[in-house]
Amino acid sequence: MNAAGTSSEPRSGDPLPHSTRIYVTGEKHPGIRVPFREIKLTPTRAADGTAEPNAPVRVYDCSGPWGDPAFTGSVEHGLPPLRREWIAARGGVEPAPSSYQPVPGRSDAPLPPTLRRQPLRAQPGRAVTQRYYARQGIITPEMEYVALRENLGRALTRPSPAAREGNARGGPPFNAAIPAEITPEFVRSEVARGRAIIPANINHPESEPMIIGRNFLVKINANIGNSALASCIEEEVEKMRWATKWGADTVMDLSTGRNIHETREWIIRNSPVPIGTVPLYQALEKVDGKPEELTWEVYRDTLLEQCEQGVDYFTIHAGVRLRYLPLTARRVTGIVSRGGSIMARWCLAHHQENFLYTRFREICEILRAYDVAFSLGDGLRPGSIADANDEAQFAELRTQGELTRIAWELDCQVMNEGPGHIPLHLIKENMDRQLEWCAEAPFYTLGPLTTDIAPGYDHITSAIGAAMIGWYGCAMLCCVTPKEHLGLPDKKDVKDGVLAYKIAAHAADLAKGHPAARARDDALSKARFEFRWDDQFNLGLDPVTAREFHDQTLPQEGAKLVHFCSMCGPQFCAMKITEEVRNYAAAQGLAETEALQKGLEHKAREFIHSGTELYRKA
Amino acid sequence: MNAAGTSSEPRSGDPLPHSTRIYVTGEKHPGIRVPFREIKLTPTRAADGTAEPNAPVRVYDCSGPWGDPAFTGSVEHGLPPLRREWIAARGGVEPAPSSYQPVPGRSDAPLPPTLRRQPLRAQPGRAVTQRYYARQGIITPEMEYVALRENLGRALTRPSPAAREGNARGGPPFNAAIPAEITPEFVRSEVARGRAIIPANINHPESEPMIIGRNFLVKINANIGNSALASCIEEEVEKMRWATKWGADTVMDLSTGRNIHETREWIIRNSPVPIGTVPLYQALEKVDGKPEELTWEVYRDTLLEQCEQGVDYFTIHAGVRLRYLPLTARRVTGIVSRGGSIMARWCLAHHQENFLYTRFREICEILRAYDVAFSLGDGLRPGSIADANDEAQFAELRTQGELTRIAWELDCQVMNEGPGHIPLHLIKENMDRQLEWCAEAPFYTLGPLTTDIAPGYDHITSAIGAAMIGWYGCAMLCCVTPKEHLGLPDKKDVKDGVLAYKIAAHAADLAKGHPAARARDDALSKARFEFRWDDQFNLGLDPVTAREFHDQTLPQEGAKLVHFCSMCGPQFCAMKITEEVRNYAAAQGLAETEALQKGLEHKAREFIHSGTELYRKA
Repeated sequence: MNAAGTSSEPRSGDPLPHSTRIYVTGEKHPGIRVPFREIKLTPTRAADGTAEPNAPVRVYDCSGPWGDPAFTGSVEHGLPPLRREWIAARGGVEPAPSSYQPVPGRSDAPLPPTLRRQPLRAQPGRAVTQRYYARQGIITPEMEYVALRENLGRALTRPSPAAREGNARGGPPFNAAIPAEITPEFVRSEVARGRAIIPANINHPESEPMIIGRNFLVKINANIGNSALASCIEEEVEKMRWATKWGADTVMDLSTGRNIHETREWIIRNSPVPIGTVPLYQALEKVDGKPEELTWEVYRDTLLEQCEQGVDYFTIHAGVRLRYLPLTARRVTGIVSRGGSIMARWCLAHHQENFLYTRFREICEILRAYDVAFSLGDGLRPGSIADANDEAQFAELRTQGELTRIAWELDCQVMNEGPGHIPLHLIKENMDRQLEWCAEAPFYTLGPLTTDIAPGYDHITSAIGAAMIGWYGCAMLCCVTPKEHLGLPDKKDVKDGVLAYKIAAHAADLAKGHPAARARDDALSKARFEFRWDDQFNLGLDPVTAREFHDQTLPQEGAKLVHFCSMCGPQFCAMKITEEVRNYAAAQGLAETEALQKGLEHKAREFIHSGTELYRKA
Repeated sequence: MNAAGTSSEPRSGDPLPHSTRIYVTGEKHPGIRVPFREIKLTPTRAADGTAEPNAPVRVYDCSGPWGDPAFTGSVEHGLPPLRREWIAARGGVEPAPSSYQPVPGRSDAPLPPTLRRQPLRAQPGRAVTQRYYARQGIITPEMEYVALRENLGRALTRPSPAAREGNARGGPPFNAAIPAEITPEFVRSEVARGRAIIPANINHPESEPMIIGRNFLVKINANIGNSALASCIEEEVEKMRWATKWGADTVMDLSTGRNIHETREWIIRNSPVPIGTVPLYQALEKVDGKPEELTWEVYRDTLLEQCEQGVDYFTIHAGVRLRYLPLTARRVTGIVSRGGSIMARWCLAHHQENFLYTRFREICEILRAYDVAFSLGDGLRPGSIADANDEAQFAELRTQGELTRIAWELDCQVMNEGPGHIPLHLIKENMDRQLEWCAEAPFYTLGPLTTDIAPGYDHITSAIGAAMIGWYGCAMLCCVTPKEHLGLPDKKDVKDGVLAYKIAAHAADLAKGHPAARARDDALSKARFEFRWDDQFNLGLDPVTAREFHDQTLPQEGAKLVHFCSMCGPQFCAMKITEEVRNYAAAQGLAETEALQKGLEHKAREFIHSGTELYRKA
């Protein structure tokens, strides 16, 4: 096995142009090295030939060691265990025998010895969660790491030269509480009060700490996973690397087919980001796909197996209660969540309450022994605009709130999953109720899709809803790919989904006024205005596509040095003319100095405010 | 010349699958035939083999005669003059000699005689605008046509079976006033008060009437046009047809190169939708691209030439006043509108007020003689997030409001152009100020783009902003293609832009509660839930892509008949399991009858409201 991916596609290991990997070290924990990608820029050249340098731009980087040209590891050996010593130093953990039992006939891809690890677990009765430490007042290395990462490694994010009052720091905060600087203590306090989580299984020491919470950068998750019908392990590992290269903050492995354990092991050992799963899918595999044959014991053993492997968060559909099921019967699209429909069928077959609900405290006790975070599933989420914000959906959300508080009591980290298909005008109600009923635990939504009529384009129908709910306070957005509702995403689809969601998340960060959000927009806009074409491409989320699109119209290399663009041609360019307007104004003494400029602005304001009488023909 | 487009691409004339062209006739004006596309659906099949038919779904259709398989015309002859008799019957018009003077050396593609038309103009001193007739209390055929079109030809839109209170009719209306039925009289009253326009040049009788206003379906415009560097007439005509096939409600021809007059003539004679232009571009061609050499006379003659050809609306940058220019000098991206920067340069070169502003009444007198609508340009719109909502932008918007009232006084139809680059939290301020300052004249925005960091994906960065501002009250959204800022859009880019904007406009219509909006979502969701794969594809905005994506995972024709999907495989499908849950519930007598169902819901609500005590282990 190797990491090349299919031969016709770009490889996840290819570096992004004009980029350097840099590391910022910790203060409280000097061993910490937080990675960033730094994009080098060309100087601004004035008409007289003088050049003024442009500072490189530092961006958040999810690609882990795979994005570091100095890293020489391979997927057969997995990533280095970044957090192993931090975990060991905190104590309270002990080695445990692996509880994995291969299912006969379901596994034909044995793991190489280089990928096998000895699992850890908490000593009996202990919690080893980030929440537990946070509530003890302890700032873990993970917390300091996260603080440095959120600030892009600057104690105080340098305010953009263009930042003006009332614009740079975002809009109505919807009761958010984002400080001007993200400090390690702020991270700790947010984790302690449950408003943020740091998914960090003690058995996934390869992962680089990241935080999910409304007062931090909006995060995105990308789904991968084979099914009974398609895909193989190698492809899934490559999809995971590919997704993180383009900015996925976490990856969910939704595999359902053969070799489910082995696929997950390859993914976790090679993933620099937290991995989420839906353990119910594997439990169902163990009972030959018959929901009514599921038992608590089969499910519990699956949880243990995945806790030991290093899964960082579990989707658990504990809110799908028997009494809510009739509320879905008249829906246009019934129950569309796989986990939700499996548990619904179990409940009906047994005439019993969902065992994930009745056993919830036992589940908490398992998860806190590995620091696996809850992602409380929304099994009754609406699958169509017609079903949005109905009673079934909100009944489950209330139960999510109830379960959130129990998990907190047992020092588990928790987030809540949300919809789904929601028209624009009903999105805010989702966010408001979740904040209220779930006490500001992080919300993690799938989109939402804002219309049902565009199969093939649901990355766009949902990026619209995702940007809005991110602005309103949603902490993580689950990517929807163009293949949603139609087929299994390939590498191209995963990238398209991630790009649409990086846009949504960043648009939300700008509106929230996150202190690290604006600098990249301003640097790119300045490059665009100054015809620094290469810088414009390289500062974008996808430099490869930007350059390719430019070159389709003007392929000559010289075209990237000229002061016009292909939309308008050499005589017509708006930016070229504006440049001339500025030069003209400067020559006339209209805008040369700041002081004069201010005087003119004042005068112009006077004109404006003195009324706007129209010139009339004599 | 033929209409085939480039050979490797799909052709604009290919019909969409399972679709029929139908026409609905007028009552007040029985000669009216309003086109729709009707999508035929397959029946719903129950497990016992019985079949229940699904009614066909009628959708708004912008493709004109090109979308009617019975139409046998060609682009060499142009479309039939649908509105010629309506215009003649109203009187007040007379033939006029063409004032077109070819510029030597700028034109080498003479028009075939089959495309030449005799221009009309109003008798001296008269207005022949839809606004003029509306204010006389006259319901023109155009107004009745529009009413039928907005209602999808139904007197009252059939309420969706799934429509529930508080969801189906949209959200907070932001003071919109959308009636349950769009009547011809409502159309007239909206046009009379300036809250909507029907762009309909008397010299473009080929165009099918459509309306732009906040109380109607949100419209989208697609830009086409060659530049000095690329593209030819044939390609532009095909792009126009291609854009309308996918749903462009109007098309702007932004050509700037050679044969600018001839390109426009080919486009207008073949366009079923209103055509917009920026006359300044052609005027500048006439003075060799030197803004300072522009004169009122050159500009006026260009207006006359384009009025006679049949352009339906003009972007006119009359709000770029000399006194506002210093307000842009400290921007990150200065003036990014081509028209804005041309006029800025002219003003500075002459130390004079913008002649489009000083001559505004004369312009009104020209436009009302042909019923060309104003699209008051936003020459000072922000070109970056950093410059959003600044003083320069809002100073111009105030002037747009002033000019809107003058145009109304002279019975011209007017809309206002808006930005641009705006972060999420500043979008609503744009809409609110426009509604207030411009007295609810239709707003027509470019996006807005909600971040600057994704060149190559600006159809997505802007579809987010477009959906939101559409919901807030914007009447028309100008498509942004993936090539924005990078290159000239080809056919694929035009389609990608149109699709992203159809999504944004439709998402806004759902949120506004337009009575004709929801039926298609519900029909598609029902088809999806019932595994009617073909119907799901065909009801989508792009059936071709949806089918292609499905077939990438499950190419066998039989896969479109099975009751599972490729995401989950045969054992796992959420929808399949839900179906079983419903069947199970029905077998248990849980959900068979409406009455019983209601009883159960009541009981479930009781459970929910009686508190949610958690099961605990004994």
